[in-house]
Amino acid sequence: MSINKTPKAALIIIGNEILSGRTLDKNTQHIALELGKKGITLSEVRIIPDVKDTIITTARVISDSYDYVFTTGGLGPTHDDITVDCIAEAFGEKVEVNSEAYARLEAHYGAENFTTARQRMARIPTNAALIDNPVSTAPGFTIKNVHCMAGVPRIMQAMLDNVLKTLEGGAVTISRTISCTLPESQIAAILSTLQDANPDIDIGSYPFFANDGVGVSVVLRGTDANKLELLRADLHKRLDKMDANPRNTD
Amino acid sequence: MSINKTPKAALIIIGNEILSGRTLDKNTQHIALELGKKGITLSEVRIIPDVKDTIITTARVISDSYDYVFTTGGLGPTHDDITVDCIAEAFGEKVEVNSEAYARLEAHYGAENFTTARQRMARIPTNAALIDNPVSTAPGFTIKNVHCMAGVPRIMQAMLDNVLKTLEGGAVTISRTISCTLPESQIAAILSTLQDANPDIDIGSYPFFANDGVGVSVVLRGTDANKLELLRADLHKRLDKMDANPRNTD
Repeated sequence: MSINKTPKAALIIIGNEILSGRTLDKNTQHIALELGKKGITLSEVRIIPDVKDTIITTARVISDSYDYVFTTGGLGPTHDDITVDCIAEAFGEKVEVNSEAYARLEAHYGAENFTTARQRMARIPTNAALIDNPVSTAPGFTIKNVHCMAGVPRIMQAMLDNVLKTLEGGAVTISRTISCTLPESQIAAILSTLQDANPDIDIGSYPFFANDGVGVSVVLRGTDANKLELLRADLHKRLDKMDANPRNTD
Repeated sequence: MSINKTPKAALIIIGNEILSGRTLDKNTQHIALELGKKGITLSEVRIIPDVKDTIITTARVISDSYDYVFTTGGLGPTHDDITVDCIAEAFGEKVEVNSEAYARLEAHYGAENFTTARQRMARIPTNAALIDNPVSTAPGFTIKNVHCMAGVPRIMQAMLDNVLKTLEGGAVTISRTISCTLPESQIAAILSTLQDANPDIDIGSYPFFANDGVGVSVVLRGTDANKLELLRADLHKRLDKMDANPRNTD
């Protein structure tokens, strides 16, 4: 992959607890930001239930469609942790006790406490590479372009750090934000004109409701810091003329 | 649809700002919980970028696969708000100025402030029904089984309330939780046994890391409150015997 191309990634969240509303998903935001820093674009997220056929089908489709794929969830020791078996089946691999994972887990728990349930966490698809877990030992794994990580945020974050060291990124997308006190509809025409004139910058507008009234944050995203600064300065001047109280907010 | 069948729903989040990590998505959790109360299961979420072809393809596939579909985002007055045109194209409809939406927006803003950009928010696919927006007037819309709502949480929530009044739900899934101070791996065998014996109850286990040590929350989900209470009492007894400090947490 050329370093000038920004690789595209997708995230598959395997998690009944997100779909039931019990848990607020914060992994997407963390992964999006970390990928962004590395020059990888998060292009799609799918949140799916702990259902075998759904996991298998989704993994195959998404693996074919993106440069890098991440999954979270379903790696633990209980009956509802089925990610290992599903991902192995999706890519025509068997599941075996991985001797390296077994050794790490046995050393972590001690031989006398290394129960059958814990041994289950040493089951890894054949031909997968382990993803180190410095938090609680039980590893994730990589098979093809799919990186399977734990769902617990603290563990996922440590695994992601380890995966990202091994991946090639592209040009890093950066952003500049300018906020003003006019409603979105009053600056829509300006933004449309600027977007047409700057096709390599993505201009997004996000209304906000603050205590002292409504306003909008305009986010400029692209890979060229100079161009972003010039565009923001241009927009700042235009908003100033409209008494829109523009301010650069990051 | 029979009232005894629990309808399945999917959510399409149209939002570059979620995929870039700029914004933490809280709409999924709100929608999941509200659907749950109504007896509708949220079965899949897709977060996709503001890209025309992606929105069109996703809307078609998801509409065919689920009873109810919700979308959030892309309904505002700016150039990056393309949901109306994409959803119309997905279902072979044209976009027209909806006279009812136009009248509501004109009354809200006043004729003199009803700018071209604001008039854009009266553009609705033909043959769509409006979704009332008591917060900021600009309506959402329903076409086929797809309900298109704003992305701003306060507006989305008000629109969702209005949509849910019109939908038929099924049996409501309820949950009972029991937490204990043993690690997940030590109760895995018990949970597996209980899951096999109770196929109509979904048993999930979620490890937590508290200041005073690790533990696990076991969530029992099903539609029969009596069965859930009986199963929780059984599990409570088993965990008590293991000195696992079980406590009912909701």
